[in-house]
Parts: sequence; structure tokens; C-alpha cells
Amino acid sequence: MRSFYRIFQIALIAIPLLAMRQDKPLRVIFFGDSITQAGVGPTGYITKMTEMLKIKNQSGQYELIGAGIGGNKVYDLYLRLEDDVLSKKPDVVFIYVGINDVWHKSSHGTGTDPDKYVKFYEALIKKMKAQNIRVIVCTPTVIGERNDNSNAQDGDLNYYSKLIREIATRNNVQLCDLRKYFGDYLAQNNPENKEKGVLTSDRVHLTDEGNKFLADRMMEALVKTN
Amino acid sequence: MRSFYRIFQIALIAIPLLAMRQDKPLRVIFFGDSITQAGVGPTGYITKMTEMLKIKNQSGQYELIGAGIGGNKVYDLYLRLEDDVLSKKPDVVFIYVGINDVWHKSSHGTGTDPDKYVKFYEALIKKMKAQNIRVIVCTPTVIGERNDNSNAQDGDLNYYSKLIREIATRNNVQLCDLRKYFGDYLAQNNPENKEKGVLTSDRVHLTDEGNKFLADRMMEALVKTN
Amino acid sequence: MRSFYRIFQIALIAIPLLAMRQDKPLRVIFFGDSITQAGVGPTGYITKMTEMLKIKNQSGQYELIGAGIGGNKVYDLYLRLEDDVLSKKPDVVFIYVGINDVWHKSSHGTGTDPDKYVKFYEALIKKMKAQNIRVIVCTPTVIGERNDNSNAQDGDLNYYSKLIREIATRNNVQLCDLRKYFGDYLAQNNPENKEKGVLTSDRVHLTDEGNKFLADRMMEALVKTN
Amino acid sequence: MRSFYRIFQIALIAIPLLAMRQDKPLRVIFFGDSITQAGVGPTGYITKMTEMLKIKNQSGQYELIGAGIGGNKVYDLYLRLEDDVLSKKPDVVFIYVGINDVWHKSSHGTGTDPDKYVKFYEALIKKMKAQNIRVIVCTPTVIGERNDNSNAQDGDLNYYSKLIREIATRNNVQLCDLRKYFGDYLAQNNPENKEKGVLTSDRVHLTDEGNKFLADRMMEALVKTN
Repeated sequence: MRSFYRIFQIALIAIPLLAMRQDKPLRVIFFGDSITQAGVGPTGYITKMTEMLKIKNQSGQYELIGAGIGGNKVYDLYLRLEDDVLSKKPDVVFIYVGINDVWHKSSHGTGTDPDKYVKFYEALIKKMKAQNIRVIVCTPTVIGERNDNSNAQDGDLNYYSKLIREIATRNNVQLCDLRKYFGDYLAQNNPENKEKGVLTSDRVHLTDEGNKFLADRMMEALVKTN
Repeated sequence: MRSFYRIFQIALIAIPLLAMRQDKPLRVIFFGDSITQAGVGPTGYITKMTEMLKIKNQSGQYELIGAGIGGNKVYDLYLRLEDDVLSKKPDVVFIYVGINDVWHKSSHGTGTDPDKYVKFYEALIKKMKAQNIRVIVCTPTVIGERNDNSNAQDGDLNYYSKLIREIATRNNVQLCDLRKYFGDYLAQNNPENKEKGVLTSDRVHLTDEGNKFLADRMMEALVKTN
Repeated sequence: MRSFYRIFQIALIAIPLLAMRQDKPLRVIFFGDSITQAGVGPTGYITKMTEMLKIKNQSGQYELIGAGIGGNKVYDLYLRLEDDVLSKKPDVVFIYVGINDVWHKSSHGTGTDPDKYVKFYEALIKKMKAQNIRVIVCTPTVIGERNDNSNAQDGDLNYYSKLIREIATRNNVQLCDLRKYFGDYLAQNNPENKEKGVLTSDRVHLTDEGNKFLADRMMEALVKTN
Repeated sequence: MRSFYRIFQIALIAIPLLAMRQDKPLRVIFFGDSITQAGVGPTGYITKMTEMLKIKNQSGQYELIGAGIGGNKVYDLYLRLEDDVLSKKPDVVFIYVGINDVWHKSSHGTGTDPDKYVKFYEALIKKMKAQNIRVIVCTPTVIGERNDNSNAQDGDLNYYSKLIREIATRNNVQLCDLRKYFGDYLAQNNPENKEKGVLTSDRVHLTDEGNKFLADRMMEALVKTN
């Protein structure tokens, strides 16, 4: 009788917990620029990740939310951090920003200085960690797909990627080293050393192959320590 | 007897009010870039304003605080708004930023797009007004002192000044139209149409004459509706 | 008998001269960028000038030749001066270049420094004058049609225009002050202060109205001292 | 008797040849930018090459002439080709230009587009070859000495170097691949991955070690097919 009561007690606590677990999937926000904005499109990387979860029968475990806006740089993310991320109480946030911070230097004269890039980036992380969010930082992919470091922005993209790797270490957050993954892939799969047409359609935005590749890398990062 | 009681009643309310007024000078923060950082130097415009108040025996009425950092653009102000302004509970804030937002486009490729400039500027104002701060917005002064609109950044400075005038109207905040004041002054006082050497030493940063001129304009704005 | 001989003598000289004048129209080359390249299109300014001559029955007096290539800056003209101008033995050359020298600073990072602009410009003039060509130099028109000096490149365009006016004086060549003409026109005819849509379709390239206006100004310059 | 006659015959031919060789050293012009302008300074690379020749007792065989001007890009070389190179009737010309073509994109907005770079470069070569000059083309060295392709301009410098290698092949002229030599050296000799202080003092201009290294590479190129 007593043990039944005990079991009953446990059940009282455990059932709602299990229910909660089932009712409340892990909320994951992808916070970024146009690539992430396109990520929720029909062939976008977030859409593909959702489909991957469905196939694995894990749809209930993750809620994937795109929060990408075209042209965004790191300080734009900071400006909309409260509205687009914190207020939504996510469990995990991927920060994937940097292409425009580098690219707009030459295309619009409005890129982001490296020291400011780091400052805003760490301000993002600090506010997310204060809300106990698991942060995953991504290095920027590519502006041009040549695989011999001869795309005009390669030097800067390599440098900003180093900064992000240092940020990850310094802030003890997970790194998803997209630039490295893309570089390795293109070294193998771009034999003609083309500027575009492999993972990107226009040197930056992703082809279907690019979205697939990105979805795989993002998924690996997401499930890694989960 | 009754009137004495009445006077006593008034005194009960008025004396603390007067005391409060004397004890608590109006706290004014100048929020900006290197020009404002230099403003608290020995010949800077904020130092000159403090001296002007002393001469007028009004030192007790105002507390002038410089919050300028070299190289700052509008989004840098936003990043340090809490720490450098809001936490200090000012009564009045001058926002004087924009030179670097325009200038760094060509000098570093890291200026600020006009739409982003407006977005961050209005975010600053919104947070200050929420704390009941009287905001005074300033148009950017000059990058080059030629008085015939032939300084390289004149087009952009004129445009960003228009944006600030619109911001002032739209947000119902006070305008201190420095660019207009500087332009009018240089039209009269730069007969050789020099690039620098009148109000600035290097096309941007202020000479003693420039700091004096700026201090006068800022003081006019400060006491205007006070 | 003697006077008849005299008349015969004069005729001997005069007839070929008259014939030559009829047989050999004044060869005019328009040397420039995309605006001039479009100038020979169906609604381009050079086409319109040819039509104007036809109406005035002066088709035989002028041969108008377009030598514009999109994206050209002053040094591009220098590189193709021999092939596209000198080898064609023109009588008159309009130099109309400068928009890209200014514009590409911010759009591509590949504009032309003012001192280099002057150097190449005067090198063009020197080589043309050595071949006895009448040179007409044009100030750059517009990048944006706002009439209050608030287009981003107005400062630079005003400055480069001043440089061209000085070049004209210093080298004693004719000036066609297009920037002034466009400015005066837009002050009257752009009441909404639009960026484009009056003389240009895209802030730079000409509408039909723009081509007509330019054709008129060019024609005035051409017939001026002729 | 016969052999004496034979020797006499040989002497008849050989003596003038030797004389000519002694009387007329090979005239070598170094055509470039500020690095080459500094090259004729007390510790410059051209000065060092002259000293190397003295030590090897070959001073009479080469006349080394610096023709570098600070800030020069490829089109500046084209503008002064006649005056500073062709008119001096050199036997050999090193073309060493490209740093500013890349660098000034971000620092002044006045770099050189790659297609224009190639066009002017090949125009230089064509005019030199027409005068039977032996042309040696050099890839640009460095803007920043980090050895992991993370200097901001590395992508562009790698690309322009590829263009020069293609130019060398296409025009059948000798290549002096300075960028490769510098890269290999820095991979070995910059263990801290510093931005400057190994071969350059300021990321671009050469230290004594840099000038020595450059002098060695230039000398190897010069004597290679001589």
C-alpha cells in the first residue's frame, strides 16, 4: 500500500514532466541574414532540417524558427535581439552573421570594422547566456567559391572567421565552423575553380546543394551535445 | 491669521521644491564621437560651456557631462546607451553623431546606411524618452570647410542632416541644426574657400574658434526651452 | 581681260575650297562613357543632334560620331585615345567623362583620385591639341537629381566640375558646363525633389527628356564659335 | 703560322664584342610604386642589387635604374611609360605594380578593376616589346604579412597575382613571382603570424630584411636567362 502510494507520488511528478517534454519541443532560432531568411523558403536549409526531423520521427523534439533578414549585419541582430529572439524564449540560438559585415565594405562602404564586429557579437552572446540560451556561433560561409583563396573577400572572411573561433573559445559557446566546412567541400567539389554554381547561385546565396549541405552541418551541430 | 496659515501652507510645499532645485542641477550628457570626446579637453566645447556657466553664475544649475568616444557611429551609441547614458539618469541628452557614419564609408568602408542610421537613431530616442529625458538632436557639422558644396562628403552630410531634421519632427524632439549653423558661418567667414583652418584643424576636428562657436550654439539650444 | 584673268585665278582657288567644304563636313567625336554609348541609340542625344541638323538642313556640315563605352573613366579614354579618336582625324572632340570616376569610388572602390583625374584629362587635351583638334570639355551631369545638394556624390561631382572648369581655363579650351545646366534645370523642374525620373531614369542615365536637354546644350556648344 | 692566323681571326671578331659588352652595360629599369621609389634609397632593394654586383665585380655589366613613384597604379605607369621608360632605351624592364591597385580600393575608393588592370598591363607590355625590351613581370608582394590568408586584401592579391601569371604566359614574358616567394618565406619565418615586422615595417613597405630578400629574388630573375 505504501509503495503504491509512493508510485502514485512519483507519477504525480513524472507524468507532467514527460508530458511537458513531449509538449514542449526544443525551440531553436536561426538568427541571421538573407541566407537564413531564404532558409525558411521551400528549398531553404531550415525547411530541409524540418524535413530531416520528420523522416527521423523527431518532429516533436525540435521547433525550428527562422529569424533572418536580408542585409543584416551583427549590429542589426543586436537591435532586434529582444523582439526577434529573447522574447520568444528559445532554448538554442544559431548566430550566423558576417557575410554582409565583410561584403558591404566594398559594395556599399557600410561594412563592419572587426573590433566592432567582435563587440556586438559578444554583446549578443552575453544577453543570450543571461537568459540561459545555448548559443551556437557560425563562421561566415563564402563570397565566391574559388577554392584557392582568390575570391576578393577571402582574406577578410578568413580573418572574421578567426575572430568568431576566438569568440567561441573566450565565451565558451559551441562553434559551427561553416567556413571550414564550405572550404573543405569546395576543395573537393569545385575542380574548375568556379566563382559560383556549386554551393551558391551568385557567390553568396545557396543553391539546393548548398542548402542541403548547410542543413546537414547545422543538424550535426544541433544534435551534438544534445 | 488665515493668510498666515495660507503662506505657511505654500511654504511647506515651495521650500523643498526650491531646495531640490538648488541641490540638483540639471544633468546634461553630450553623447557623441571624437569631437565630443575632445569636448571635455582643456579647450573643448563642453569645457567652454562650463566656463560660460561660471561667468553667468549658473554653475549650480547645470552639470555638463561628456560621453564621447572617438570613431563612434550611431550604432556604437546604441551599444553603450545603458552604461554611458541611461544609468546616469540625465535630464537632458544631446545626440551629436553622424560624421563617422558618413566619413567611414570612404575611409574604411564601414559607414552606416541611411536607413540603418535612422533606425538606430530612433531607437536611441525611444529609450531615452521612455526615461523621460529631454533629447536634443544635432545635425553633423562638416567634413571639409569649403562653402560651395564641393567637399567630397557634402552630399551625404546634407542628406543625413535632412534625415535628422525629419527625425526631430517625427519624434517631437528638439533640433540643434549644427550643419546649418556651420554652413552659414563658413559662407561668411571662409572667403578663400579653404578646406580646413577656420572652424576645424583637419576638416573635422574643431579649432579653438570651432569649439567656441559650437559651445555658443549648444548653449543656446540648452537654455532655449529651459 | 586682266580682270577676267583675276577672277579666273580666284576661282581656281575658291572652287576647290567650296567643294572641300561641302565634301568634308566637320567631323565631331563624342568621347565618353555609357551615356555617350547610349547617345547613338534610337533616342540618344547624338541621334537627336543628327536629327536637329537634318531639320535645319545642315546634315552636310557635320558628321557626328559617338565614341562612348560603358563604365569608362578618364584613364580608359586615354588608353583608347589613339584608336578611337586620333586615328579618325576629327575636327572637334567633346570630352564628357567623370561620372564613373566619382561613382565607382563607392560602388566598386575603383574611382579616380582628383589629382589623377586632372593629369589624365590634361594628357588627353595635350594630345588632341597637338593634332589641332578643337576640344570641348564637359562637366559631369548628375548622380541623383535632388536639387538641394543632398545626393551622395554631389560634393565630389561639384569638386570634379570645378577641376574641369580650371582645366578649361588653364588649357584654353571650350567649356560645356553640363553640371551647371542640369542643376539649373532641376532647380526649376524637380519640385518634388525626386532622385530620378526627370532627366534620368536611374539617377545617371538619361530619359528622353534628358537626352533632348543634353542634345540642345551640346548643339549650342558645337555651333558657338563655329 | 696557321694557328696564329686563326687566333688573329678570332680576335678580330671577339675584341669588339668584348669591348661592346664592356662599354654598354645592360640597362635595367625597375618600373613601379613607392616600394621601388624607396628601392633606390640607402637600404633599398635596387641599391642592394647594385652593391651585390660590385661584390661580384659585375658593376660594368648592369646599369640599374629606379623608376618608382609612390601611389602609382598600373595606369599611372602607362601614363609615364614614354617619358620614364621608353625614352631611356632600356634593355630590361621589371614591372612591379599592383599593391595600390588593390589597396586603394578600400583605403581611397580608387583601386583598379581587374579587367582594367589586365588591359593596361598588356598595353605596357605591348609597347615595351615593340621596342624589343625584355620584360619581367612581378606579382604583388603583400599587404599584411599574416601567413594564413587572413590579411584583408589577400583574396584580391591572390587574384591579381593569378592575372599576372596568365599575362606572363599569354604574352610570353618572364615572371618573377614575388607573391609566391614572400608567401613561402613568411610561412617559414613568421611563426607568430604577425601583420608586420618581418619583411615589412607597415604591412607594405620593406624592412631591411625585406629589401634584402627582394634584391635576391630580383637578381635571380635578372641573371636567369641572361
